[in-house]
Formats: sequence, structure tokens, C-alpha cells
Amino acid sequence: MSGKLHIVALSGSLRTASYNSAAIRAAMALAPQDCDIELLDISQLPLYNEELDGEHVPQAVLALAKRIASADAILFATPEYNYSISGVLKNAIDWLSRQKPQPFADKPAAIMSASMGILGGVRAQYQLRQMMVSMDVHFVNKPEVMIGQAHEKFSELGALNDGQTAEFIEKLMLALRDWTLRIQR
Amino acid sequence: MSGKLHIVALSGSLRTASYNSAAIRAAMALAPQDCDIELLDISQLPLYNEELDGEHVPQAVLALAKRIASADAILFATPEYNYSISGVLKNAIDWLSRQKPQPFADKPAAIMSASMGILGGVRAQYQLRQMMVSMDVHFVNKPEVMIGQAHEKFSELGALNDGQTAEFIEKLMLALRDWTLRIQR
Amino acid sequence: MSGKLHIVALSGSLRTASYNSAAIRAAMALAPQDCDIELLDISQLPLYNEELDGEHVPQAVLALAKRIASADAILFATPEYNYSISGVLKNAIDWLSRQKPQPFADKPAAIMSASMGILGGVRAQYQLRQMMVSMDVHFVNKPEVMIGQAHEKFSELGALNDGQTAEFIEKLMLALRDWTLRIQR
Amino acid sequence: MSGKLHIVALSGSLRTASYNSAAIRAAMALAPQDCDIELLDISQLPLYNEELDGEHVPQAVLALAKRIASADAILFATPEYNYSISGVLKNAIDWLSRQKPQPFADKPAAIMSASMGILGGVRAQYQLRQMMVSMDVHFVNKPEVMIGQAHEKFSELGALNDGQTAEFIEKLMLALRDWTLRIQR
Repeated sequence: MSGKLHIVALSGSLRTASYNSAAIRAAMALAPQDCDIELLDISQLPLYNEELDGEHVPQAVLALAKRIASADAILFATPEYNYSISGVLKNAIDWLSRQKPQPFADKPAAIMSASMGILGGVRAQYQLRQMMVSMDVHFVNKPEVMIGQAHEKFSELGALNDGQTAEFIEKLMLALRDWTLRIQR
Repeated sequence: MSGKLHIVALSGSLRTASYNSAAIRAAMALAPQDCDIELLDISQLPLYNEELDGEHVPQAVLALAKRIASADAILFATPEYNYSISGVLKNAIDWLSRQKPQPFADKPAAIMSASMGILGGVRAQYQLRQMMVSMDVHFVNKPEVMIGQAHEKFSELGALNDGQTAEFIEKLMLALRDWTLRIQR
Repeated sequence: MSGKLHIVALSGSLRTASYNSAAIRAAMALAPQDCDIELLDISQLPLYNEELDGEHVPQAVLALAKRIASADAILFATPEYNYSISGVLKNAIDWLSRQKPQPFADKPAAIMSASMGILGGVRAQYQLRQMMVSMDVHFVNKPEVMIGQAHEKFSELGALNDGQTAEFIEKLMLALRDWTLRIQR
Repeated sequence: MSGKLHIVALSGSLRTASYNSAAIRAAMALAPQDCDIELLDISQLPLYNEELDGEHVPQAVLALAKRIASADAILFATPEYNYSISGVLKNAIDWLSRQKPQPFADKPAAIMSASMGILGGVRAQYQLRQMMVSMDVHFVNKPEVMIGQAHEKFSELGALNDGQTAEFIEKLMLALRDWTLRIQR
């Protein structure tokens, strides 16, 4: 190991100007120096179909599984669509969960959610936590980063311009770093 | 109205031999005579992207929204992937929830889930119920149809050959019919 | 029937100055004229013990079950303790769910939650919805009334002094009235 | 430290012949030799009332908080009542969560659930996991021990007489031991 923790990030929104992707880019800047964060691309996955799984796994799935399996930790950022995570993120999780070795197994992880409403995506977070129990993921509990009224906190170009949100993200990244070091074997 | 209730069904699995699609076909045969069930195709939707939404909504989304909006009731059948509904089904829901008028609004609905494990997909059902609160869907509560060990209850060609499961599905369809008539304005 | 709908209300907090009990009292004033709301007392129930159930059911449980069974609809108001409803409310529900006939069966219901935080108890609401599926309760979906920063919205004596909250509660009571009339047999 | 890990256990059922308390006693016998398990008594707590909290905290709450705070790990065993944990267990959690220092903070924990139905209490487990996020509890993910048809697996005196269940409990206790050692500071 280079001494740096490698964190891979999954964004639940495919929109170029996504607040959640922007939150991940903010995390890149705010993370401790001994962490680097890589934003993975889940936009190229087909809809999950068990018939494609097995011998015909799409190349994009295999590539993602490999990146995740070799990471030290996972960072999820997801919008809340219909009181849960996006179908786009769930589709990626469904593909990845079936690969062998299962790439999320025993990994530390953290969640952020950004939405335009006041609740900041809170309902999506516990649904995601339940999902990842099945894959033996160990989530950081605190802080819980729900970025409400996201359109007021990010510029149109995706720059974070809210001090309190920056502080929360910085604390989350510290917590993820510490938790990763604590549970790493 | 023709006097028949029109129920549209969404299957969370794209596999041709899907147990959930098979459960929907079983429901077609077991439903009361005054109901007809139409299985909708959600396999042609792209991954949701807000940039495509609005003026460039895919034709498949518009067609689905129209079918759902004109239906009397909804029937969901979903596998449990990672303790929730499939990403495929969530992706369809995400697209449909954004259309105006929102097609699920104020509709009655019922859930089945089929899985190879003993729990029959129970964890997916409450996540789906939470999601659909956002769209003002009114679910039948009883019976709750979780089809465990589905591989023993359907033939390879998807024929239901388990009497108790048939009875549960029949009761669910009766309950959905009665609930639909009860809340229909 | 007198022509008035009789709604029974359960508050998840036993504190005299409870914001949730205060929200129920506000609902009494804001409900349509053809509804009356009765706040039930769940403070006298012992902790649930199956050994007391059956032949030795506490009088307070029997009395509550009778009040609920004869009501047209249920109104829940609960604080969020540890991301769920209060144990006090769950304890009452556990007792009541075991009585025959089960008093909540097939009833319409609505939820409010009040808390001092910004999220207004949202996490408790979906846990409660899941619980009540088991008892065949039919919840109003909209509006969802989460009263955040409750200490700023109620006086020390429990008077509601926030216009927007009053409007939400009024809308919820209208929705509960309409939903009750719609599903009543 | 004596070298032994001290695990405190909370049972969600107050019935003398409770399957969940019996599962905890089974865990005592099946746990690795370097663990000892103490079953705590939550039957003496009053219903939570914020007015009693603060300066008049019941002695039983203080005593429990102390036992938990000094433990290395927590073992929960709960029945599923109405698709969640029992109100009795939630009431204990509500009291304990308010004590300073918060006794569950940063502790490792594991869950078992026993019920007479086939699902073994699965719905209660994810509600409990959500609750304990608020207290920064770190749950073991695997194995998930749901003891269905509990009346066939325990004798009337509470002896576990099902080999497979014993194996699951043994694995869970091993996993809790390993997880505790892994995250202990």
C-alpha cells in the first residue's frame, strides 16, 4: 500500500450537474490528505438481467467490481427518489452484488445524500443501510450527512458554497478514514 | 367502463423465466372473472437521467405512464435483491413518478414477491410500501404473498404447481378487486 | 351513528407538555365540524407480558381496545425516539394488537410527528406504517405532517402558534375525514 | 481486563418461558470460552416519561446504563411484535439512550430474533438496526439469526434442541467475539 487509503465513490445520479456527484467532488477536496477518492461511473451498466449474469457479465460490471474490490472503503452519495435510493444506484448494486468475489464484502462505507427538499434524502439512507447488510458492509454511523435544499448550497457548476455542509462532509471523511483504519485487517 | 377492472402488472425481473413474471401470469388465471391483468414491459427503459426527463422523455416511459394512468389498479411482483426491490423495478418507478400527471396517484395496489430463499422476498415488500407512499398508492394489506423456495413451486416453463401458493395468489387478487371497488371514486 | 365521525387519538409521549399531545389538541380544534377527536390515555398500561395476556388482560387494555374498536378512524401523534416511534406507543400497540377482535383491523388512520429537530420525526413515520400493516390499518398518505423544531411552534402551555403547521394539520384532518368516508363500509 | 469479553444481553420478551430469553441462555452455553454473557433485566422499568428523566431517573435505569456502559458488546434477542421489536425492548432503549454518557455509544452488537412463524422475526431486525444507528452501535452483519417456528426448537423449559439453530447461534457468537476484538480500541 502506498500509505494512502483508496476510497471509491458511487453517485446515485447520472445528471452532469448532479448535487450528489458534486458532493463527492467536494469530499475529494475535503478528505484528509491520506485519502484519495475516485468517482466511479455507473452510467454504462445495462438494466440487470440474470440471463446476462454468469458467463456474459458486461465488461463495465467486471471493471467496476474490480475497482471496488481493491478499494479500502466506499463512499455513497445518492439522491432520494421516492423515499429510497435511485434505481440507477440500486441497479449498479444489484449487478455488483452478484459478482464473485462479492466486491463490497467486509468493506467500510459512508453515506451522503443531497436533495432539494428540507429532509436532505434521509429516507433513502436507511433503505441503503438495510440493502448493504446483505453484502456485509460496515457503515460509519456519525455524522449523518443529509444535504437539504442542495440548490442553495452548490453553485450551478457544482461548487460547494456552504460552510456548514463543508464541515459535515469533512467530518464524515475523517470518520470514514478513522473507521477504515480501525476495522482494516 | 366495460365492467371489467383493468389491472396493470409490473415485474421486477427481466429474466424470461422469472418467477415473479410467472406469478403474474398465475394471477391472470386466478383473478376473479371481472378483472383482467396486463403485464407491462419495463425492460426498454434507459437508466433514469433527469437530463432526459422533461422534454426528451423516452417514448417507452410515456407509453407506460399512459397504461398505468388508465388502469384501475396496480400489481407489483418483485424479486428481493439485496433486501429491497430490484433496481430494474426502482428505475421504472423513478421514471414514472416524474411524469405529469403522476400515473400511480391515488391508485390501489397489491404486492407479491418470489424468491428462492425461505423468506420469499419479505424485506423488499416494506421498502416498496415506503416508496409508494410518496406517490399516494393505497396497498392491500392482506394477504401478504411471499413465495419462498420459488424454484420448487414453479415449473421450468413457469407454470405454478403449488396449491397453497395458488390459493394465496387467488386471495390476493380477490382482495385487490374488493379494495379497488371499495376505494374507487 | 350521530353523523359525526369519531376519531380516537394516541400520543406517543406521556409528558404533560408533550408537543405530540399538543398537536392532537390542535387537531381537535382544526378538524372539520363533522369529526370529533378523543385523546386516549395509554399511560396506565403495564409493560406487555404475554403471561398477563389472555385471561388476565389489564382493565386499561380492555377499555382502550373497546374505544378503538368503536372508532371510525385513528390519529397517531408520536415523537421520534431513536429513529422510531416511542416504546410507550409501541407497548400500547403490542397490547392492543393481541385483543380479539383486533381493534385496529381495517381502520383508516393518519400520522403526525413532532420533534425538536429539523426532520420532524420522519424516520418514525415509516416504521409505524410498517407496524400497522400487520393490523390491516389503512393510512392516509398525504399530507405527511412532520412538525420540526416543535419548541418554536407550540407555546409552553401547548398552544400551536405557527400558521403553516396549523394549515398542515387542518389538511391532514380533512384528508382523514375524506379517506374515512371513502373506505367506510 | 480479565481477558474475558463481557457481553450484556437484552431480551425483548418478559415471559418467563420466552424463546428469546431461551436463545440468550443458549448463547451463553455456545459462546466462545473467552466470552461471558450476562442477561439484563428490563422488566422493572417504568414507561418512559421525559418528566421522570433528568433528575429523577429510576434506579433501575441507572443500574442498567452502568452495566451496558461497562460491557464490551451487546446481544439483542427480540420477538417480532407487529413487524418490529417489542415495545418493552424499545422502552428500555428509549430510557437508556437518554443517559449520559450514552451507554451504547460505539459498542459492537449482534441480533437474534425468535418467533413462532416461519419468518423468524426478520422484520424486527432491520427496524432495530435503524434505531441503533442513532446510538452509534456497530452491528455484526453475518450470520443473521432468525429462529422461525421457535416452539419446535426449544423445549417447554427453554432448552434448545435444534442442531442447526445451535450452529447459527454459535457462529453468531463467534462473529460477535471477532467483531468486538476487531473494533475494540
